[in-house]
Amino acid sequence: MTSDFYPAMRNFKLTLEYDGTDFNGWQIQSQGERTVQGEFQNVLTQVFKRRISVIASGRTDAGVHALGQVINFKVNTRMSPEQIRRAISSFLPSDIVISKIDEVDLAFHAQYSAKTKTYRYTVLNRAYPSPKERNFCCYYPFKLNLTRMRREALRLIGRKEFLSFQASDPKRQVHNTIRRIKMICIRRKGDFITIDIEADGFLYKMVRNIVGTLLQIGSEKSASQNINEILKKKDRSAAGKTVSPSGLCLLQVTY
Amino acid sequence: MTSDFYPAMRNFKLTLEYDGTDFNGWQIQSQGERTVQGEFQNVLTQVFKRRISVIASGRTDAGVHALGQVINFKVNTRMSPEQIRRAISSFLPSDIVISKIDEVDLAFHAQYSAKTKTYRYTVLNRAYPSPKERNFCCYYPFKLNLTRMRREALRLIGRKEFLSFQASDPKRQVHNTIRRIKMICIRRKGDFITIDIEADGFLYKMVRNIVGTLLQIGSEKSASQNINEILKKKDRSAAGKTVSPSGLCLLQVTY
Repeated sequence: MTSDFYPAMRNFKLTLEYDGTDFNGWQIQSQGERTVQGEFQNVLTQVFKRRISVIASGRTDAGVHALGQVINFKVNTRMSPEQIRRAISSFLPSDIVISKIDEVDLAFHAQYSAKTKTYRYTVLNRAYPSPKERNFCCYYPFKLNLTRMRREALRLIGRKEFLSFQASDPKRQVHNTIRRIKMICIRRKGDFITIDIEADGFLYKMVRNIVGTLLQIGSEKSASQNINEILKKKDRSAAGKTVSPSGLCLLQVTY
Repeated sequence: MTSDFYPAMRNFKLTLEYDGTDFNGWQIQSQGERTVQGEFQNVLTQVFKRRISVIASGRTDAGVHALGQVINFKVNTRMSPEQIRRAISSFLPSDIVISKIDEVDLAFHAQYSAKTKTYRYTVLNRAYPSPKERNFCCYYPFKLNLTRMRREALRLIGRKEFLSFQASDPKRQVHNTIRRIKMICIRRKGDFITIDIEADGFLYKMVRNIVGTLLQIGSEKSASQNINEILKKKDRSAAGKTVSPSGLCLLQVTY
């Protein structure tokens, strides 16, 4: 029905930043809790006067943040991307922001077209917590051996069976637990340690389980832990604890 | 009454970090609103089982943060500084933290002994706001000429009459409006601009009025603004707008 009267269906790709603290994750919940997707779709309804569903590169859990979440939605409109950005931004709550908007091919799908995702986990490694960063890091006051953490992290790189790092929650388990980690980068910046992980996909809580394991490996006591052994066991109990969602941030999605 | 039975009166100097977002400033209010001093004194009552008043280097306003607020209090106790730090920390809310504690001479007074204070103001200078930093910066999307801002800022350095930068609120005005600014440092770090100002003291809202004026000077439109003229006028209306308290942070106090 594309004509002068009926505008064509178009596809928009947006990059979002959000502070996940006050959200029950990305995905709309049946219980009606506050979610990023729920808030965003409500704003789209206000702007376009109809229900529009939004596709994200992937869900983020409750308390997890984003600096580079990518989403797309289709709508028949004559508005320019910049007009759409302004209209949506004027309704968005202050904990969600659009950093980028582009019109893309109708075939683009934020989830299925994604090639890799990069998550950053931030650890505060000093004697006292940080009021400012308390919702954006996990506080770990014990001494960490970064050399040992980096050496063991290298063993996670490549196409591997990550069953040992999949959350034990049966509702979120999948059958194919093979993923390809492209990069793990552990950096210290002052009192903060960041752990960046890029992969073609992640199992539920995989990043938080890997970080918990690396922290255990980096603490002086457990020099015996070994990533190769943990991977081989294919058993969640072989790996370390799940660290807090507050330290986790979806940094980038590549297409 | 110093004896084996009655411990001596001792003086403790503490450095605090706080997220000022959910506080109505440092100072206890008659209306019973949540303040940093109020929260801290309540914790001291829990730890020492008596009322102890706390002296700060200076008040911070509602929404203003601290990375290096210095306080002191006197108490007769046998606890070590580290024991006191742990006891207080176990009761403090997550938006206040003790970063340092030392026992000091009884003559030490956090306000009167202070030589200089350094405040940092943070401006987010890009096309869209930041959900993560929204309570810790002022969002300014327009182009800024940092060279011009730095050149004009230099004129504020030294012992000067700062009447033009004192808040117009008559309740908080003081008679001696001469202060000595030791240093102003304007830096860009990615999308953020920080303005650090060190002085022997500050008038009410002086930092926020200086920053508002510098932003006006840095924006292309108002090239005519001149710090020397503003200082000479001794009139609040000559200077720029007061910027938001959320961008302000008490960085350091020297003694």
